[in-house]
Amino acid sequence: MVAKKKQNAFYAQSGGVTAVINASACGVIETARQHKSKIGKIYAGRNGIIGALTEDLIDTSKESKKDIAALKYTPSGAFGSCRYKLKSLDENRAEYERLIEVFKAHDIGYFFYNGGGDSMDTAHKISQLSETMGYPITCVGIPKTVDNDLPITDNCPGFGSVAKYVAVSIREAGFDVASMAKTSTKVFVMEVMGRHAGWIAAAGGLASEKEGDAPHIILFPEIAFNKEKFLKKVDRCVKKHGYCAIVVSEGARYKDGTFLADAGSVDAFGHKQLGGVAPVVAQMVKAELGYKYHWAVADYLQRAARHIASETDVEQAYAMGKAAVELAISGQNAVMPTIVRKPTKTYAWTIGQANLADVANVEKMMPRNFISKDGLHITDVCREYLLPLIKGESYPPYKNGLPQYVTLKNEAVKKKLKQKFEI
Amino acid sequence: MVAKKKQNAFYAQSGGVTAVINASACGVIETARQHKSKIGKIYAGRNGIIGALTEDLIDTSKESKKDIAALKYTPSGAFGSCRYKLKSLDENRAEYERLIEVFKAHDIGYFFYNGGGDSMDTAHKISQLSETMGYPITCVGIPKTVDNDLPITDNCPGFGSVAKYVAVSIREAGFDVASMAKTSTKVFVMEVMGRHAGWIAAAGGLASEKEGDAPHIILFPEIAFNKEKFLKKVDRCVKKHGYCAIVVSEGARYKDGTFLADAGSVDAFGHKQLGGVAPVVAQMVKAELGYKYHWAVADYLQRAARHIASETDVEQAYAMGKAAVELAISGQNAVMPTIVRKPTKTYAWTIGQANLADVANVEKMMPRNFISKDGLHITDVCREYLLPLIKGESYPPYKNGLPQYVTLKNEAVKKKLKQKFEI
Repeated sequence: MVAKKKQNAFYAQSGGVTAVINASACGVIETARQHKSKIGKIYAGRNGIIGALTEDLIDTSKESKKDIAALKYTPSGAFGSCRYKLKSLDENRAEYERLIEVFKAHDIGYFFYNGGGDSMDTAHKISQLSETMGYPITCVGIPKTVDNDLPITDNCPGFGSVAKYVAVSIREAGFDVASMAKTSTKVFVMEVMGRHAGWIAAAGGLASEKEGDAPHIILFPEIAFNKEKFLKKVDRCVKKHGYCAIVVSEGARYKDGTFLADAGSVDAFGHKQLGGVAPVVAQMVKAELGYKYHWAVADYLQRAARHIASETDVEQAYAMGKAAVELAISGQNAVMPTIVRKPTKTYAWTIGQANLADVANVEKMMPRNFISKDGLHITDVCREYLLPLIKGESYPPYKNGLPQYVTLKNEAVKKKLKQKFEI
Repeated sequence: MVAKKKQNAFYAQSGGVTAVINASACGVIETARQHKSKIGKIYAGRNGIIGALTEDLIDTSKESKKDIAALKYTPSGAFGSCRYKLKSLDENRAEYERLIEVFKAHDIGYFFYNGGGDSMDTAHKISQLSETMGYPITCVGIPKTVDNDLPITDNCPGFGSVAKYVAVSIREAGFDVASMAKTSTKVFVMEVMGRHAGWIAAAGGLASEKEGDAPHIILFPEIAFNKEKFLKKVDRCVKKHGYCAIVVSEGARYKDGTFLADAGSVDAFGHKQLGGVAPVVAQMVKAELGYKYHWAVADYLQRAARHIASETDVEQAYAMGKAAVELAISGQNAVMPTIVRKPTKTYAWTIGQANLADVANVEKMMPRNFISKDGLHITDVCREYLLPLIKGESYPPYKNGLPQYVTLKNEAVKKKLKQKFEI
């Protein structure tokens, strides 16, 4: 293949952020800086792809080595992320034309897109600009999603840390409730993310290492909610262990597809869906079994919890960013680095690659054999898959009792185009 | 004073548990074990004072040195806690007679009660048994409450760790929301504990070190909620910073005393108070300003979060347990060790003592000068008070990615009394 001339790179964060997406950014920038003969400036999109469309680029060369290194332990999206999916070329050709204008104006020859399934679809479309629009660009996706639902890759950066947060939190809350159950709360419900797939809820199951450990019940989106069966298990659990700790996925639903969260509360104004699923489940237990309950909704706390990030996750997130740059400079287009689990007894992983075409818009659900027969917990094979992903503690530095996360300067690149673009 | 003969000790945990109440238990047991000439066995009440009333005592001498040491990093109440307040002697003499029977049967001459305001009231009543019932006992209270509302002591063990959890969590969630706000959530509400006093909510304010940092607004129980003023600040904040992060105390209330949490939701069955205050506040913002919101309710996660405990808090909790034993063997009765802040520039503390009579049933609220003039944030003097309390990270040991908390054997002491006692 012909050696590519030196060009600038564009990097953007997409979709919901995680505790480690900035570690991928760190991998991209640190690696690109090591290949100055191939890659010139690394521009980041302010608020993701929107930054490319509006020509709002951030010049990462203005950031110090130290600040870029700090990305490895800073949660959230340092350049801003967005929920914005490019339409198909037929539906909105103007968007693609605009991207090419911006890329041309800033001599961008590399495009790195850090996101989940939707984003890999966008990345795939952009990787085809050479063919479809005659603009040569090397496009590499970088996997990221707390939902762990990308195909091909063994797991997704971002997931391991939220998994660790959930497992640690339900273990701690379980200890708390166990010690108070005699005269106080007997049922505790913790709501976690994962609207379509139960990976995050499943991770809670890791805290339960032996009979009686919290959590006692897990409610997955993949398993239709059976109220009678659920309540029976709650009651049995309280009678046997004195209390019952439950992890419920926000996506838990009835057989007809209705979310439990939707079936519940109406506020004083008659608005539906005020709350999450945790209060609905807790209230159900109270109404039917009479047990005193408490509930927690971790929401963003879980995916932002860099303070309890998994070391494996941080390393993999960084490695994916690094690998993406290496793939790009080796001339690969329309690919995404993947995490490949080695068939060894102790966990080991290496880096593989997938075609964006095979990744885009495919959701990896929990296999049925990862969920126990009664549908209310995880199996040993699931535990074996999950456990290495939460391994190791990668603590951020602290000052005055607080983690020292970096806020970048995020200096804008001077605009070169006259025309504005409306999103 | 006359040298006391060697007797056994009774230790009980009371009220809501914390991330560090077991560190106090560790201090009690390790110190008592060093004074074998004065203190024989250390019995713990199973589920707190209920264990004393029902003669359900745990023999802590059956626990290994290693397991007792592990209490220092294990959250929750290792022997079980309870919410049970002894009535006055006039109202329920039978309870006191029973306690004396149990104490006599097991040769208990020392009583250590680890709890908050209500518990110090109980401890005070028990410290008077010598006078009121002719049973000589040395009773020492050990301060514990995440609410930080005990008087005299500069702060309460348990508070520093929940404070650290809240400050770290809102900082992390703030970073998350900031990076997504362009196209997604603009207002984030995090509910924290503290029904009467705003100490925990105030701790969230520590995360905000400079203009624009999360949290932007704090809602205290001490300040009557002013909807108009609140919404104005939310709107201003979103317009200026792109987003708004709010910490709300579960005890936030209107001028007439109604809790915001009560004013909100009615579920599908017409039941009131399904949820917490966070969804109510979030929904209010949506209804009035139209901003997309997310909310979190940390609930027990915050007080059980030993994984992010404050080192200062752990050390002080241990020191209070140790000091309690030392006070007891020096012959002091009806007292509680306290934390005394030294008037030095860099934070330093020492141990003082207070009379239980002065501690019982007194609640220490946030001083008005700890809350900003607009009532919606903390002041510098508050920050100065709070900051040392969250200082230092005291991480538990991990195995397979999970914190290794200890579950004690909790072997029961053989009962000596024939009569059962109904709670």
